[in-house]
Amino acid sequence: MDAAGFCAALDGIFEHTPWVAEGAHAAGPFASVSALHAALMAVVRSRPRAARIAFVSAHPDLGGKAARAGDIAPASVAEQAGLGLDRLSDAEFSRFEALNAAYRARFGFPFVVCVRRLTRDAVLDAFERRLGNDPEAELAAAIEEIGFITRLRLVERVEGSGMPNVAGRLSTHVLDTHKGGPAEGVRIELYEVGRSARALLRETVTNADGRTDAPLISGVPLRAGRYELVFHIGAHFAARGLVLPEPAFLDTVPIRFGVSDPEGHYHVPLVVTPWSYSTYRGS
Amino acid sequence: MDAAGFCAALDGIFEHTPWVAEGAHAAGPFASVSALHAALMAVVRSRPRAARIAFVSAHPDLGGKAARAGDIAPASVAEQAGLGLDRLSDAEFSRFEALNAAYRARFGFPFVVCVRRLTRDAVLDAFERRLGNDPEAELAAAIEEIGFITRLRLVERVEGSGMPNVAGRLSTHVLDTHKGGPAEGVRIELYEVGRSARALLRETVTNADGRTDAPLISGVPLRAGRYELVFHIGAHFAARGLVLPEPAFLDTVPIRFGVSDPEGHYHVPLVVTPWSYSTYRGS
Amino acid sequence: MDAAGFCAALDGIFEHTPWVAEGAHAAGPFASVSALHAALMAVVRSRPRAARIAFVSAHPDLGGKAARAGDIAPASVAEQAGLGLDRLSDAEFSRFEALNAAYRARFGFPFVVCVRRLTRDAVLDAFERRLGNDPEAELAAAIEEIGFITRLRLVERVEGSGMPNVAGRLSTHVLDTHKGGPAEGVRIELYEVGRSARALLRETVTNADGRTDAPLISGVPLRAGRYELVFHIGAHFAARGLVLPEPAFLDTVPIRFGVSDPEGHYHVPLVVTPWSYSTYRGS
Amino acid sequence: MDAAGFCAALDGIFEHTPWVAEGAHAAGPFASVSALHAALMAVVRSRPRAARIAFVSAHPDLGGKAARAGDIAPASVAEQAGLGLDRLSDAEFSRFEALNAAYRARFGFPFVVCVRRLTRDAVLDAFERRLGNDPEAELAAAIEEIGFITRLRLVERVEGSGMPNVAGRLSTHVLDTHKGGPAEGVRIELYEVGRSARALLRETVTNADGRTDAPLISGVPLRAGRYELVFHIGAHFAARGLVLPEPAFLDTVPIRFGVSDPEGHYHVPLVVTPWSYSTYRGS
Repeated sequence: MDAAGFCAALDGIFEHTPWVAEGAHAAGPFASVSALHAALMAVVRSRPRAARIAFVSAHPDLGGKAARAGDIAPASVAEQAGLGLDRLSDAEFSRFEALNAAYRARFGFPFVVCVRRLTRDAVLDAFERRLGNDPEAELAAAIEEIGFITRLRLVERVEGSGMPNVAGRLSTHVLDTHKGGPAEGVRIELYEVGRSARALLRETVTNADGRTDAPLISGVPLRAGRYELVFHIGAHFAARGLVLPEPAFLDTVPIRFGVSDPEGHYHVPLVVTPWSYSTYRGS
Repeated sequence: MDAAGFCAALDGIFEHTPWVAEGAHAAGPFASVSALHAALMAVVRSRPRAARIAFVSAHPDLGGKAARAGDIAPASVAEQAGLGLDRLSDAEFSRFEALNAAYRARFGFPFVVCVRRLTRDAVLDAFERRLGNDPEAELAAAIEEIGFITRLRLVERVEGSGMPNVAGRLSTHVLDTHKGGPAEGVRIELYEVGRSARALLRETVTNADGRTDAPLISGVPLRAGRYELVFHIGAHFAARGLVLPEPAFLDTVPIRFGVSDPEGHYHVPLVVTPWSYSTYRGS
Repeated sequence: MDAAGFCAALDGIFEHTPWVAEGAHAAGPFASVSALHAALMAVVRSRPRAARIAFVSAHPDLGGKAARAGDIAPASVAEQAGLGLDRLSDAEFSRFEALNAAYRARFGFPFVVCVRRLTRDAVLDAFERRLGNDPEAELAAAIEEIGFITRLRLVERVEGSGMPNVAGRLSTHVLDTHKGGPAEGVRIELYEVGRSARALLRETVTNADGRTDAPLISGVPLRAGRYELVFHIGAHFAARGLVLPEPAFLDTVPIRFGVSDPEGHYHVPLVVTPWSYSTYRGS
Repeated sequence: MDAAGFCAALDGIFEHTPWVAEGAHAAGPFASVSALHAALMAVVRSRPRAARIAFVSAHPDLGGKAARAGDIAPASVAEQAGLGLDRLSDAEFSRFEALNAAYRARFGFPFVVCVRRLTRDAVLDAFERRLGNDPEAELAAAIEEIGFITRLRLVERVEGSGMPNVAGRLSTHVLDTHKGGPAEGVRIELYEVGRSARALLRETVTNADGRTDAPLISGVPLRAGRYELVFHIGAHFAARGLVLPEPAFLDTVPIRFGVSDPEGHYHVPLVVTPWSYSTYRGS
């Protein structure tokens, strides 16, 4: 592929910054999509500090006026919208504005984070934690996040061998060790747990294997953050015809857990009787 | 003890109904407080249906105008106040009024329940469930509840051998099977879980044995109903200096459980590592 | 397929009894191998009692002189040899002889059991238990066992759609909830547990997923009986560099379990820390 | 107490070595038995190297000719007999003789170990491990063992406040989470597990609390070493009337564990259903 075609094919992946693709073209052709992405990021990292800062500065504020006004790169629009950052309440907007201002004042460039790998609360946690970084570490952190952002965009744009792993997986199963087999028909809810509220992400039911027909989350990064699974196990034991005291010792079982690795596999099962349960991080 | 002294000693235990003590006096003296209580209840049960209905009718409405106005037997005042039934919101008051009216219309006597053995939500559940009873079963249920009420009052009034068991116990402990020993210093919250909200009952911290210095609840009936223990286990592992990903897989662990036996022993432990936990109803 | 070809194709499946295949031919062609087997067994069950007894009587004694002498159908030779019934010690031979004699005296036909679905000890248990049956139940039991025997032989002889399920599966995995991931490199031994001794069946090592590269047993019936898995978990924790007291709380962990369903799936995992473990029958 | 009485009272505690008591007398009176023992050991440790070696040399060989002949201090006789060291087979006697000879050749004094704190196999392990020590570390190790030996003897000889802790405790309980309560009537065996065999130490049955009426071991040091508890849980579920497949998934459950702290508390419970179990080191 010639340089013009190569740059056109990658247009929009590196927000308003054509020199990244231009710089990487000479290193091709690439054995894999992962190698292509590594070459693009190597171009970024090889630039002098001022150029790297200018590059980071090409990114829009998170939850900022530009996001509200739609005045950012199309990929950014969708990414920020995925977290609802384009429709913040006034209080939330003010909070983001204050964090953005503090961050710019400290580092001289906008806060960049791969919002598709974090819950909204985890974005705020990261914002506050990174405000404490020293400037060199923070510039590296910003560029690492741009690596995550562009890796996801690239995977959606190109096809080829050696695709980088950008998807995590969250799964569960319910084993009824009172009867000695999978628990079928158990209703399960998955919530994202925020500081002040929790949001229902999915509702599903176990099949004859005690599993869900599809993973709870797959094909995309797991947003790092806090979650809660709620298993409606009391209804399961009642449906089996067990005679249990009222109210039952176990009715809805909540399992609250954190995800730290967006590309990881989290298997969070429930091994349960009417009088006991256990869970663990499996894989 | 002569009949007058006997009746005076028991005054107020059977709400406005002196004939219960009068009827039981002849059967004495009693080998135990349990035997005394059984004799008192036998007097009640031996009366004709109309007398039993009159006896039940001597009890105040639950959460009713009399309770608001303080116009009920002193023991009832304290018992209803324990559930907050003397300070219901207007909406709650209306709900109780409606249930009381429906119940009286169906059975011809007021709804009686031993409120010290139930959470407020469990009282409402019992109210609705018992509205479906047939009249004979319901009269027996009302008298059984009066047995619970008077047994508690009696235990507080008299001393003697053979006291009936009126107290339950709720306890916990936290075992850290990552380090192989009790988890000390773990903050634990105990909530009563209602239909729409949960109320903090107690907050405590584990000692060097991984237990709480005193049971979470003891010396009184456990109110039948739904509860949640929350164990702040993330802080424990952090305090041990373990290096774990951020956010940790386990931070606050909720264990939600039902109590059906107010005089039972419920031991609800947490056996935990940074990556797994189990619980069970122990004793 | 004509009758002669059909019978030739099934020769040897029903021990010395050509009329089974002859009787089933008219019912064909068969939609599935399962349907073919059902038709063959229906022929057996439709015969008068005397013919059924004669049919059962065509089977050799278990662990008897004929087995020692090799004077039985070739399929029987291999099946009995699989349990070592062709090389019993003199004491064992005497025991089988005595059981065979008692059984024949009681029922008038030889004891038949599908030896590929049982451990040697389970064969002896079945022998003793079935001696207590009444004659009708025992004749039905013998024919049911012939159903198992011939189903296995049929599956090895013919190909086609709708093969009956004759294979079980035994699998395991080891999850280290101290580190929060699969335990790799754990040595595992699988024993068959007999009355007086245990025999090593397999030795394997977990892979990076904490699983074994292949199931412990698959593709054949699980022999109903007693087993023991031994997990060398102390070496695993030592290899991870954990500093643990000497001797460690856990070194080799034995898990002893029974298999009752030869065609079932038994997943028997170990969820383990240096100070705790759990297991369950999964699927 | 005068010096003569003091020494007489302590006679025999420090094997053939009167100067230990003589040296400690001046430091008295002692606030506690622990302080008395610390003072006695301080006398030993304050002596010059040659005197300490002579002191250690006053102890008999372990499992040696003197033990067989009874030619050692009376306390040593009982202690060695407790492990069966006075009635070794010829092969074992030869093994001890060889180890004693190798040890004496390397260090110039006999191998001393507090045999009441170890199983026989753990004694052999310690023998082999300590042969690899450098001489200074080994002299200190021998004197530390004499501290354990004399602490135990002292506790049996004197009464007083501040007794040192010389007793461990091993306990268990069985919780049936299929029924939601303690498992009563479960037969339990406790074995000491040696290299080539295991020896039954105790057989007991759980009471209504799922516990044993007395701890499995208490009042004495737990011998460091390897153990196995066997729970006859299949019989328990059968006695409850559960209908389970034959053979049951769980029948006898072995739990094998190591004890490293002879004065520690080891609680090793079984939390069990017909299809699962877990255990942990509790306290």
